[in-house]
Amino acid sequence: MIEIEARPYPYALPPGRTALVVIDMQRDFIEPGGFGDALGNDVTRLEAIIPTVAGLIALFRRKGWPVIHTRESHDPDLGDCPPAKRLRGGGTLRIGDAGPMGRILVRGEPGNAIIDACAPVEGEIVVDKPGKGMFWHTDIHARLDELGITHLVFAGVTTEVCVQTSMREANDRGFECLLIEDATESYFPQFKASAVEMIVAQGAIVGWATPLAKLEEAVG
Amino acid sequence: MIEIEARPYPYALPPGRTALVVIDMQRDFIEPGGFGDALGNDVTRLEAIIPTVAGLIALFRRKGWPVIHTRESHDPDLGDCPPAKRLRGGGTLRIGDAGPMGRILVRGEPGNAIIDACAPVEGEIVVDKPGKGMFWHTDIHARLDELGITHLVFAGVTTEVCVQTSMREANDRGFECLLIEDATESYFPQFKASAVEMIVAQGAIVGWATPLAKLEEAVG
Repeated sequence: MIEIEARPYPYALPPGRTALVVIDMQRDFIEPGGFGDALGNDVTRLEAIIPTVAGLIALFRRKGWPVIHTRESHDPDLGDCPPAKRLRGGGTLRIGDAGPMGRILVRGEPGNAIIDACAPVEGEIVVDKPGKGMFWHTDIHARLDELGITHLVFAGVTTEVCVQTSMREANDRGFECLLIEDATESYFPQFKASAVEMIVAQGAIVGWATPLAKLEEAVG
Repeated sequence: MIEIEARPYPYALPPGRTALVVIDMQRDFIEPGGFGDALGNDVTRLEAIIPTVAGLIALFRRKGWPVIHTRESHDPDLGDCPPAKRLRGGGTLRIGDAGPMGRILVRGEPGNAIIDACAPVEGEIVVDKPGKGMFWHTDIHARLDELGITHLVFAGVTTEVCVQTSMREANDRGFECLLIEDATESYFPQFKASAVEMIVAQGAIVGWATPLAKLEEAVG
């Protein structure tokens, strides 16, 4: 076990049983000119964490530990998109519509790709998830079990939406979860801050949080 | 459709396809002398919403609409409690230990019962859930589908833990969710406030929120 300084108390990481989960580092959420930007979100907040997320991925690759990438995405026929999700918000740009980087949240479209700096390499798992959470309507639970994974390190966007939802699902399923605080971001700084606090509250009710430097320091 | 004034925009409630979900109104979380109290939480915050939750339940019963109750609980042999959950936090009182109102979070123990003011009546569904979310390791999704339910109204405790987690799961599954703001509470007021804001943000990314009075006004 590698002990990592974290909130609310040290996190014990078992090499060989720990995977990194990088949530939704998609062009449409992060790049200027994408869907997130078109909705009026300040994507520069999300762009700022790219080097940290890339550094975290590099650390896992150097160690030979599994790296898992998720994408929020739907089938081209939207068969896996609940009507409630498509209609929600009442905006003019909906899932499946033609957006600035191809059809919005549709698999295979340019905007749905993971940004170059965090792109998956051969052998890494990519999870296409129709929900905010990574477990709903995916096979990731079975794949984690097959790999003998019991501990998950989380990064990606956005903190209070897809990252938090996926961590809560993982926690219910018995995974020990660590969030890398400076490798996650939200369009809304106050939501990031309070999501992290909610996660570590009550003795790590959802999991632990620490900056990348503490993980690097402990793992070497 | 009944239109209810709500944030971030009006919620359309279809009678006959809407159920109430009352999350974890358990003695151990709410009553003085219970597990929550023993952990040092201020349970008076939670006690304060009891009349509102009871009023909401009464409204659904009067209309003949389904009422669902959840309990966070485990089998007496703890077979459904992940080791990670039992060991988390490092406190002295753990799940399954003898607590002030019987074995903590174990089905059938006095502290695991729903408080009298919100107790289920004959014919109402009671979901025993081992996680914070109501969908993990339960049959509630199939039961909601059987009943033709597409819309869920949420109440109960605590807002940012079991209520938020269950709403996020329900939202991913395509249910349209409305949180009754004054029928939910947290041990931490700032977490309740920010969980509600996260839910209604970005055009109701998780769902809607409104006080009981607005629902009563619309439903009659």
